[in-house]
Parts: sequence; structure tokens; C-alpha cells
Amino acid sequence: MEQIRSYIDKNRDRFLEELFELLRFPSVSADPKYKDSVLATADHVAGKLKDAGADNVEVCPTAGYPIVYGEKIIDSTKPTVLVYGHYDVQPPDPLELWKTPPFEPTVRDGKIYARGACDDKGQFYMHVKAFELMMQTDTLLCNIKFMIEGEEEVGSSNLGIFVKNNKEKLKADIVLISDTSMLSMENPSLETGLRGLSYLEVEVVGPNRDLHSGVYGGAVANPITILTKMIASLHDENNHITVPGFYGDVIELTDQEKSELNSAPYNEDEYKNDLKVNELWGEKGYSTLERTGTRPTLEVNGIWGGYIGEGAKTVLPSKANAKISMRLVPNQSSEKITQLFTDHFEKIAPKSVKVTVTPHHGGEPVVTPTDSIAYKAAQKAITESFGKAPIPTRGGGSIPIVALFEKELGLKTVLMGFGLDSDALHSPNEKYDIFNYYKGIETLPLFHKYFAELSK
Amino acid sequence: MEQIRSYIDKNRDRFLEELFELLRFPSVSADPKYKDSVLATADHVAGKLKDAGADNVEVCPTAGYPIVYGEKIIDSTKPTVLVYGHYDVQPPDPLELWKTPPFEPTVRDGKIYARGACDDKGQFYMHVKAFELMMQTDTLLCNIKFMIEGEEEVGSSNLGIFVKNNKEKLKADIVLISDTSMLSMENPSLETGLRGLSYLEVEVVGPNRDLHSGVYGGAVANPITILTKMIASLHDENNHITVPGFYGDVIELTDQEKSELNSAPYNEDEYKNDLKVNELWGEKGYSTLERTGTRPTLEVNGIWGGYIGEGAKTVLPSKANAKISMRLVPNQSSEKITQLFTDHFEKIAPKSVKVTVTPHHGGEPVVTPTDSIAYKAAQKAITESFGKAPIPTRGGGSIPIVALFEKELGLKTVLMGFGLDSDALHSPNEKYDIFNYYKGIETLPLFHKYFAELSK
Repeated sequence: MEQIRSYIDKNRDRFLEELFELLRFPSVSADPKYKDSVLATADHVAGKLKDAGADNVEVCPTAGYPIVYGEKIIDSTKPTVLVYGHYDVQPPDPLELWKTPPFEPTVRDGKIYARGACDDKGQFYMHVKAFELMMQTDTLLCNIKFMIEGEEEVGSSNLGIFVKNNKEKLKADIVLISDTSMLSMENPSLETGLRGLSYLEVEVVGPNRDLHSGVYGGAVANPITILTKMIASLHDENNHITVPGFYGDVIELTDQEKSELNSAPYNEDEYKNDLKVNELWGEKGYSTLERTGTRPTLEVNGIWGGYIGEGAKTVLPSKANAKISMRLVPNQSSEKITQLFTDHFEKIAPKSVKVTVTPHHGGEPVVTPTDSIAYKAAQKAITESFGKAPIPTRGGGSIPIVALFEKELGLKTVLMGFGLDSDALHSPNEKYDIFNYYKGIETLPLFHKYFAELSK
Repeated sequence: MEQIRSYIDKNRDRFLEELFELLRFPSVSADPKYKDSVLATADHVAGKLKDAGADNVEVCPTAGYPIVYGEKIIDSTKPTVLVYGHYDVQPPDPLELWKTPPFEPTVRDGKIYARGACDDKGQFYMHVKAFELMMQTDTLLCNIKFMIEGEEEVGSSNLGIFVKNNKEKLKADIVLISDTSMLSMENPSLETGLRGLSYLEVEVVGPNRDLHSGVYGGAVANPITILTKMIASLHDENNHITVPGFYGDVIELTDQEKSELNSAPYNEDEYKNDLKVNELWGEKGYSTLERTGTRPTLEVNGIWGGYIGEGAKTVLPSKANAKISMRLVPNQSSEKITQLFTDHFEKIAPKSVKVTVTPHHGGEPVVTPTDSIAYKAAQKAITESFGKAPIPTRGGGSIPIVALFEKELGLKTVLMGFGLDSDALHSPNEKYDIFNYYKGIETLPLFHKYFAELSK
């Protein structure tokens, strides 16, 4: 441990500067206009893996953005850890809400503000630096493989194919991912499950052109009005989702699981105050921690139609659109839910409009075992570096790839995240605490150490 | 009549070229980025009035865009016609749907395609050319005054003050406006009423920042979901508007008025086919002509919130907005309806969000008398040039200024429009038939002639 801390102290400034360098790439995978930057980021990451001591570093092409691979095999009889991360980031919009530019990392009271600071550049880069540390201090006791992709924020659509075609290369004993959060630095935690995702876009088309709302208003169905009625009907008065069969495969938690989950530190007043809302919202009969961690949800991520410029335009628009995503819990299937939603949404559309539902991407929910060697290694590592055992939690987010790893490679995953829910992931002013960054670099070598030891 | 037609024939090409020149100005009053063009348009119109023979031409400054004034007083004992029109136009969005650029007028099968071709540049310019014609052929038998404003598409907010301050200058016997439609060139018609307008913008604010829909989804009210529920509730299952008191001041038509109104030529299949909709929509218990002409309506003109860019972003947005306008019928008050809507919308907002309603602009509904000298003069003029008496109709649109003229100047208005409902006002590919343009220039001198004669 002393060795780890002293190496970090010696390289503190460089570790931070290197992260800043990575954060300056606007690697937004959702928007084609950033294509060149995304590609440049992949090359940059490959270079950094080489510098850290990785062998066989490759920028592997896919139908979309490339996957960066690198490895260090110290002894084929030793256990192997496959580290997964992603170098792409969410779009920075709405730009005007950023206090400092999203791709010019800035430190304010000990926090790094930048798009991707936490999700996931700041977190996957901890692994690169922890690897460098183990190489330089000659303390790497197991084999390590890196797979850093560039399409996580758009559904990892090409990673599945890559994994199928490279089972030998990706052979390992466990997958290690840092792309989730802890309750707090005082209350370290380990995620034991993730929600799945079904993301789609809907379009409601009325008249064949925009119309004058005075000449046609009141006689022709307004696609915006119809869309609002359709979306409004997706949650009933208790905020249950009304799509038939939506909850069909959901397994209710046992009272024991419920009480464990609800024992996690949570202060409703602080939660409301952080978001500046007077009242929380959600499915009747469930607590906030149950709603975000263990219940499926449906959110409208975007809506647009008609005139949205300055001033007034008296138009009855030809169409209206929305982006809608559903978070899924264990035992629900992304494909099945997408189908149920599509059937329902088309069914409730009135004759006066035409409706199209286009699936964007999906991912399956996962539960990670808490009795595995890897999970125990993570517990020991966190307990040692934080001086406190981690609380098991259920994450509300989705990392589609986790289910894929299990299916294609038969590998379980350990979710060792060092972020915080308040890091404003996907929001303006995304941040990552410098403390957490160094804490991760300190904890990860301990994971590899204990995983090697416990595997004996 | 022969004299009129021969003068038009001699100047046919120039009349069209001059209209094109006017249409090339992007005089969009709703969007500040067009400011210089709007101002340049005012100067251009003033010049054209001078050229046509008007005296005392002025570009009168206001708190917003200027009002162009000009007059020809041939004999103060003769009746005076005040011609009103507007040189500003609607925004051209969505641009990508225009077959040819909105500000590069193009002729396709006898129709002029350009923003403002019909609303209102093409129509008010007929008056300028008809005036030139009467001056050149020495057939002007009454006094004429022009008042062409630049803020009609944004609620004529400064015209009211101008009228109040210039009652003497604007003294007249009748107001003549061409800013409405006819049923068709085969079925000429005269509008006898217009709807009023109440236009506002609503904002629903939830959390203080955009959130990750996986981390917070299901626990925090999504402003888009809430906005859709609020908007959806504004029409009941019979498409009646649910704002309490909304219909309080509406006067139901008599059976006689209803049958007259419904006797106007109307073919539902053609109507649906023109718009490519399978089914019409509207308030239960009323026909399409009643819905658009005699009933108040509520339309969502625009809605936006969350991520509306390409691809997927799993965000739970901080806010959502909509532009909503209501068309009002005689005896309803714009101010009162705006208040009723605001009170209701704030009342139905759940505690989990904050709602703001911002009134944009309004206008009062009007009914024009059908027994006045001016109306009879219009009937005679149309009957002579079209060879067929005009059918009285009720327009669904709003020209807020009409009610103001009555209130401030005690003047009635004649709505002598030559457009068609199919001219795509406020839509991409707005058009105006060249035939209608010349037909207007031919008909207007007859109006002045008969108005002078019948006034004796």
C-alpha cells in the first residue's frame, strides 16, 4: 500500500494532466459532426496503453467507431482480468448551461469539470494509470486485458459483433468495469446490478404540410396535441406504466432485499434540495431507492414539433416527435419490451394521424454475484483503501455490454465505480472529484492483487 | 372595365417583376436576426407608394418596426378609403421543406412560390398597383390612404399606439383590407368575420439541471411528461376545451346562420385529400366550416424539451416548453381568455414542477356588417370582375387590427381577400396564383368606383 501511495504522490500532477489531455477530445459518438475527434481519441488511448506497458495494442476497426485493445500477459497460468471502458462521451448540449466549456477541463474546489470527466474517461483512465503503476513497481500479479470502446453512449451496437468474433483474444476470468457510482466517499459501495434499456423514437404525422392554425385549427388533428395525449397516457394516475405486459416479467424484491436496499444512506430532503424540487415523483408504493434501482421506468428524453424559434408563429404543424427510453430490471427483455411498446403505441394512435416507432438501441439488465472471488477481491480492495467495507447497491443506469459479456464470453462482471450520482453525468457541468480519481488509481492495484491471491 | 384591363395588359410584366422585388426582402418580424431586412422593406414600400403617385409618404417610426403611410386626397368632400396591409412575413421554417428558397420568388404552373407571396405582400401590393392604375387613367373617384405595417405577424403591438396618436391623419369612411381568402376563383367570396387570438408560451421546470435518466428516472418528475399531461388535459374526449369559462361568452349561431354557413361549397373528401389525412378532427357536434369559422379553438403551435439532436441521449431534462394559441370568436375577449388560461394552467400544475405562462400577443374577434355601402360596393366590384356574386363566409384567421380600427377610429372594415386556403400561408412553399394577383388589381379600382358612387 505504501508503495502504491508513494508512486501516486510522485506522479500526481502528470496523472491529472494526462486526464485533462484525454478530456480535451470532444469524442461525442451520438453526433456525426464529431466523427474525426472520436477517431483521434481512439488513437490517443492506444498510445497511452502502449506507454503504460501494454503489448499487442490495436485500434480495431468496426462498422462504427473502433475498439482499442491492449494486454499484458505475465503468465498464462495466472488469472486474467478484462478491463472494459469507453472513450466516447454524451453530447454536451445544452451548451449555454456550462459554467466552463465542456471540452476545456477546469478545476473548481477540487473537482474536474468536463464532459466525460466521470463518464467514462476519468474512470477508465484510472485503470490505465493503475496498470502503469503495477508495471513500474513490478506488482502486477495477474494478466490484464483492456477493451476500450467508442460507442457506449449510443448503445455499443458494434461491440457485440467484435466480442463474438474475438472470443479467444478476450478470454479472461472476470470483467472489471469502472463506469458506475458510489454512495459517497464516506460510504463506499459496490453495485450488484444494473438496469437494461429500450430506447426508441416516435413520430406522429398529421397533415402533409404545416398549416395556418387559424384557417385549419379546430378541424384537423394537431400532431403535437395527439402526441401529448399519447405520451400522457403512458403513465396512469399512480405513475404505473400502462403498456400492456410491461411488468409481466418483473420479479418483486423479497422483504429482506427491500429492507437491505432501503438501509442504504439516503436523505430525502438533501436529495430534493440538490435538485431544487418541492416534491419527488414516481411509482406509487415504492421508495426512491426502489424506484431508481429495482423498478422499470419510462422517460421522455426529448420532444419537438412545430415552431420552436423566437416569437410567435401560428402554425398547425405537420408532425411531432419524441425520444422515449425505458429502463428495465432483471428478467425483463429489451427486445420484448421494445415490441410491447411499439404495438401499444401504434394501437393507441387515432385514425387522424400516422405513427412510426423506430427502435434506437437496447441493453439487457444484469445482476452481479456477490459471492464470487472477484466480488470478494473488490470488497477487500475498497475496505483497505477506504478503511470501510462497501455497501452493496443496485444501479439505475445501464451498461448494455455487461449482459453481452455473460452471454458471449460466459464472464461475470465486477462494477467498481468511483463516481457520484451528483457528478451530473449526461448533464451540463459534468464533474469528477480529483480525490476520487486518485482513490481509484490507489484501489485498483489492490483489486488485482487480491484477485490473484484469492484465485490461487 | 376595358380601360382597367388594357392598362393591366400593358403593364403585366412590370407588375409581376415589382412584386418579385418586394418578395425578395426577408422581412421576418418574429426573428431579430432579420431586423435590417424588415427596415429595408419599409423604405422600399414607401418608395413604391411615391412612384404610384401618393403624397405625404412617410416611414413612421414606432417602438418596433415602422409603419408606412401615404395618401392621395383628391377632394376632401369625397369619401375616403383607408387601405391597410402588412409588409412583414412569417418565419420560413422549416426551411428544408421548401422546394425553392422562400425569398427567391419562383413561378411554377402559374403560381408564385415565396414567403409572403399571399400573406400579405402579394395582396397589399395589388392595392399599390390598383392605385397607380387609377392615377394613370385618371379614374380615382375617392380619397385614398395607405397604412402598411411591419408587425402583423407578431401581434401588431405598436400599431394600436400609432392609431391612437394619429386619429386625424387616419380619418376615413371605411377600412379596406386584402389579407384573407376566397373559397375559389370559381366561387368568389367575401369574409364577414374574423376570429380573435390569444397567444402564449408555457414553461414547465422540474429539476435544476438535466439529469441522467437512469440514475434519476422514475424518482423525479420529468417536465416533458408533466407538460404532455397538462396539454393533453386541455381538450376533453369530445375535443371541447377544458379551460373553465372558456366558452362563457361564445354566442351560438342561429339555425339560419348555421345553414347559410354550411351552404358554402365544401367537399370533405377533397379537403382530406389535399391534406392527406384519413380522418378529420374537431369539436363534437360542429361541422368543419363551423369549427374553423365560428368556434373558438386551442392549438399547440410548438413544443420542445430535452435532447432533440441526432441519435440517443438518456437525459431527464430540467424543463420543457410549448407555444399555445387560442382563436376567439365574437364576444370573447382576448385579455379575459388569456387570464382564464393562465389561471387554469397554473392551477393544474403538480407540486413537483414550477410553471410559467407568458402571454405573447392577442387580438379581438370581429364581425363585419353586410348591409354597409362599402360591403355593397365590394359585392358589386367582385360580381363585375368575376361575373358572379360573392358568397359571404367567416374566416378562421385573425387580423387583430380590425377590432382596433373599430374601437379607436370608429371605422368598419371590408375584408376583400383574393388568396386561397390552399396558398400554404405560414407554411413551407407559400404561393399566390398570378391569376389572383391580376384579378385583384382589376377588381380593386371597381370597389373604389362603386364606393364613391354609392356614397353620393
